[in-house]
Order: sequence, then C-alpha cells, then structure tokens
Amino acid sequence: MAKQAKTLDDLFHDTLKDIYYAEKKILTALPKMAKAAQSAGLRQAFEKHEQETQGQVERLEQVFALIEQPAKGKKCEAIDGIIDEGKEIMKEFKGTPALDAGLLAGAQAVEHYEISRYGTLRTWAQALGMGEAAELLEETLTEEKNTDAALTELAETAVNAQARQAAE
Amino acid sequence: MAKQAKTLDDLFHDTLKDIYYAEKKILTALPKMAKAAQSAGLRQAFEKHEQETQGQVERLEQVFALIEQPAKGKKCEAIDGIIDEGKEIMKEFKGTPALDAGLLAGAQAVEHYEISRYGTLRTWAQALGMGEAAELLEETLTEEKNTDAALTELAETAVNAQARQAAE
Repeated sequence: MAKQAKTLDDLFHDTLKDIYYAEKKILTALPKMAKAAQSAGLRQAFEKHEQETQGQVERLEQVFALIEQPAKGKKCEAIDGIIDEGKEIMKEFKGTPALDAGLLAGAQAVEHYEISRYGTLRTWAQALGMGEAAELLEETLTEEKNTDAALTELAETAVNAQARQAAE
Repeated sequence: MAKQAKTLDDLFHDTLKDIYYAEKKILTALPKMAKAAQSAGLRQAFEKHEQETQGQVERLEQVFALIEQPAKGKKCEAIDGIIDEGKEIMKEFKGTPALDAGLLAGAQAVEHYEISRYGTLRTWAQALGMGEAAELLEETLTEEKNTDAALTELAETAVNAQARQAAE
C-alpha cells in the first residue's frame, strides 16, 4: 500500500470500510425481514441470503488482511438510508397483501447498492494489481447478482400476483 | 386505482414519489459532479446524463398523470445518503488523482439505486395491468443500465489507469 495520502489505495480502503459497515448492518436487518415476510419463498430467500452475507463478511475480512489493515467499518449513510426506507415500508404495509412486494423492493435496493460497491472495489483491486483481493470481491459480486436475479424472479411471480389479487 | 388503503397501488404510488424526489436530487447533483470531474470524458458523461435525467423526470410526470395523481416527490433517505457519501468523497479527494475514480463510484451507486427502483416499478406496473406506465418505466430502466455500463467502461479504462499511475 502506498502510504501517501489520498490515492486510489486510500479510496479502496475507505470503500472497503463502507461496504464492511453495510454488510454488518444488512446482517442485522435480514432476520427481521425474514420474520416479516408473508410467503415461505421470500422468508427462505432472506434466510439463505443471511448465510451468504456471513460468508461475504469473512471475505471482506480476508481483503482487509491482504492490505494489512484491521477489519473496521465506517458509517455508510447510503445503506442506512436504504434500510431505513425498508423499515418504513415494513411498518406502513404491515398486515397488508403488498408487504412482501415492499420487502422485495427494499431487498433489491440493498442488492444493487452492494453490486455497485463490489463492482467498483473489484475494478480498483485489479487496477492496483491486487489479484487475490479482486478474486474475493468478484466472488461476492457474483453472489449478489445471483441473489438479485432470484429476488426479481420472486417479485415477478408469486409475490406480485398475490398483492394484485388482494387489490382487486 | 383501487382506493382502499395499503395495496400494491399504494406501494406503486409511494415508490413513484420516492424516485421522483431522487431524480430531482440527482438533477441538482450532476452539474456539481461534472464541474468536479478531472477528465473530459467523465465530465461529458455527467453532462449527457443530466440531459437524460431531465427526460426521465418528464416520463415520471407522465406516469403520475396516468394514475391521475399530482407529480410530487417524497423524501428518499436512500438517495440522500448515496449523494451525501458522494459529496464526502468529492471533498476528501479534491485535487487528488483518485477524485475521478471516486466520482465514478458515487455515480454508479446512484445508477444502481435507480435500476433497482425502475425495475421494481416496471414489474409492479405490469402486475397492475398498466401497460403504458410499464413501457415508460422500462424506457428509463434501459437508459439507466446503459449509463451504468458506460460508467463501468470509463472506470475500467481511463480513470483508474490515471489514478493508478499517480499512485505509483
């Protein structure tokens, strides 16, 4: 790591702390989302993603080790805002047939935030010649894209049909 | 629109207000990002996206008209958080070779937020049988995906190479 201030290395380290904070926050949100979900399919999707997220946190810890920095988060206002919006939906649509659709929307906003961050970090790791870190980040990026695709499928089928039916 | 409270129609309307607020906020952020950008390519990308965003706001206004509601935003904490993080990067990395990489990362976080919201709204419009709204939302979704792809290309080539060079 270059030690001079404010280089791409610094930006990489800053953004790593940002997504580490985000993943930890997501880990606390997912069980609440699973508990709130009305359909078994959505609950299972959230439970599966919670397990995956634990693995993603461990991968981030490996990347911190590779750059010889302590694994430490930094308040990420973006994920805080996304999760607060999700909580609001959970409260406002509690007990309604549209709740699952709202939960899915919130979860997909989270996934897309992560996709953008992991894509960026992977590209920077490559530019900085950190092949091992780039591979770890790419692995998580693929998982996040797969999770988003699975949520899209859920949104397009069961959940929306259910909400639509109830709205008629 | 069903008039009973808390259906998928309500969720659609709420989320439409959320992305309308977000687009207006992005419209005020883009000129500042263009001004801050160091490379001409990135500046042009931001300027182009500002024009596109104006068209996207107009499309949202058409969707509001289709559901016979006034075009009105609703505070979106997610976009506020994403844009605040971008401002922080602009401040912390001002005058450094890594600034453009940071601007690109912020812009891609914005794009991914929009991609998730437009994807959700398009799917809901389809489920609710609102074909014309679904088409308008799909049009913007395609634009956002193209913008994100263009930003990825910029990130992978010029900007990161420049930041890398400066870091050596």
